[in-house]
Amino acid sequence: MQNQMSVLEMNRFLTSAFPEVDTRYRVRELPEMGAIIDKLPDPRDLRPGGTLSGAAIFELADISFYVATLAMIGPKALTVTTSAAIDYMRKPEAGGMWAEARILKLGRALSVGDVMLYSNAHDKPVAHANLTFSIPPRESAGVK
Amino acid sequence: MQNQMSVLEMNRFLTSAFPEVDTRYRVRELPEMGAIIDKLPDPRDLRPGGTLSGAAIFELADISFYVATLAMIGPKALTVTTSAAIDYMRKPEAGGMWAEARILKLGRALSVGDVMLYSNAHDKPVAHANLTFSIPPRESAGVK
Amino acid sequence: MQNQMSVLEMNRFLTSAFPEVDTRYRVRELPEMGAIIDKLPDPRDLRPGGTLSGAAIFELADISFYVATLAMIGPKALTVTTSAAIDYMRKPEAGGMWAEARILKLGRALSVGDVMLYSNAHDKPVAHANLTFSIPPRESAGVK
Amino acid sequence: MQNQMSVLEMNRFLTSAFPEVDTRYRVRELPEMGAIIDKLPDPRDLRPGGTLSGAAIFELADISFYVATLAMIGPKALTVTTSAAIDYMRKPEAGGMWAEARILKLGRALSVGDVMLYSNAHDKPVAHANLTFSIPPRESAGVK
Repeated sequence: MQNQMSVLEMNRFLTSAFPEVDTRYRVRELPEMGAIIDKLPDPRDLRPGGTLSGAAIFELADISFYVATLAMIGPKALTVTTSAAIDYMRKPEAGGMWAEARILKLGRALSVGDVMLYSNAHDKPVAHANLTFSIPPRESAGVK
Repeated sequence: MQNQMSVLEMNRFLTSAFPEVDTRYRVRELPEMGAIIDKLPDPRDLRPGGTLSGAAIFELADISFYVATLAMIGPKALTVTTSAAIDYMRKPEAGGMWAEARILKLGRALSVGDVMLYSNAHDKPVAHANLTFSIPPRESAGVK
Repeated sequence: MQNQMSVLEMNRFLTSAFPEVDTRYRVRELPEMGAIIDKLPDPRDLRPGGTLSGAAIFELADISFYVATLAMIGPKALTVTTSAAIDYMRKPEAGGMWAEARILKLGRALSVGDVMLYSNAHDKPVAHANLTFSIPPRESAGVK
Repeated sequence: MQNQMSVLEMNRFLTSAFPEVDTRYRVRELPEMGAIIDKLPDPRDLRPGGTLSGAAIFELADISFYVATLAMIGPKALTVTTSAAIDYMRKPEAGGMWAEARILKLGRALSVGDVMLYSNAHDKPVAHANLTFSIPPRESAGVK
């Protein structure tokens, strides 16, 4: 199976579909059935003790798997998360993060996979998430 | 077991500890071993199709369970999420949401429970999350 | 929405569809959109320390939600688990257990809900699980 | 970090600690921070349609991560599952399965990781699970 979108096309799509999101994430690479995403530092995500909020890390996982799925099926913006499970393993330092998403099953109706989440400050994963996305049945006309 | 904090104290704590979060959430009620939280509408949470982002709903679950736990143990800001699993069930309409958190086990090191998430637009739950929080071993001196 | 099956019909269905399972579980009650199931003690489920295996508790959750779903949609044996998340909270004593399953959303393709799991030895929940089941698209002719 | 147990020692430990389990699982390999486990076919795990029960697949995930953890910390039989999330992706054919467990974080109190589950019949994963185990605080004297 081949990617339907390049890194450039994906970053452009995110800019137009999610103006808010775009300023905080950048698609770095789109390997087959996967995505590598950078999360730029954002003071709003900080929590007491200089750590990142669990919700900010979850958002990175969610967006990374969304990008990995869209890269394979094309820009169907209405693709939505149906379930997710996340384990937080290490304290993320303030500063940027990055994520590596991997699709384990891409069916007609569902995309299932996981995301490993890293802090730029060290090598070991900060968190690990499993996600399932629902793919809309008909080709949507992109973003309205 | 009794609540350690009132609704007024909790809203004040959130304002001082999480200035960003505070403008978007309001503690409505603190029943024993639980919390009811209102999420104010926020245009940044919107997604194509007029729905809310999965990450915004996750954040509401996370904060609701955080508040439920802190109400029982007092304002230990360093309490952190260790794992979470969320099922998205219905499309949340644009507009406000609210959540009902319930602690199922409050141990010395862990708080385990679930959160039911509702859109203001209809009665049925939009999502349901299970969460586990780690409680810091010693009384922290509150927020720094 | 009304139940499609009585407790008697459900116990008979389980006996014919899952001879192995039937000797270990008994449907006690089928409230609307839910099920209460008893798990008989089984020495094979024991683990060192006199506790029950996590997998045995998971099986009880899975079967309870299966029964709750089938009670609403009729005996479609091919209904299968698509995802599950379970939190283990307290050590289950050796001896029987029981479970209360609750459907939170029953759609045409998916049934989503949770199960609270109890040891007969005490009142507090031993574990809590979220489950999603996939419902086969066409009426299956029951068990073959 | 090095393994504390060899494949031979682990299979012997399982035989003595879990006589029931041992006849159904076989440790194939113990790479650092991981385990590869074979599940022998067992007619009791079959379900209508010739597929394996979700609970049987969960048990394989649970045991695989248990073995991976014990291989690193030594035979502390009281190590227990605290949470798990599993996604079922493809129908497992009747016949054997195997699993590859991977530890993502091994702390003093918790072991966190995931397990990829395969049917012997085809290459693609049948299911994927995230697990967290609690490690007992003091060296237990093995199995009693």
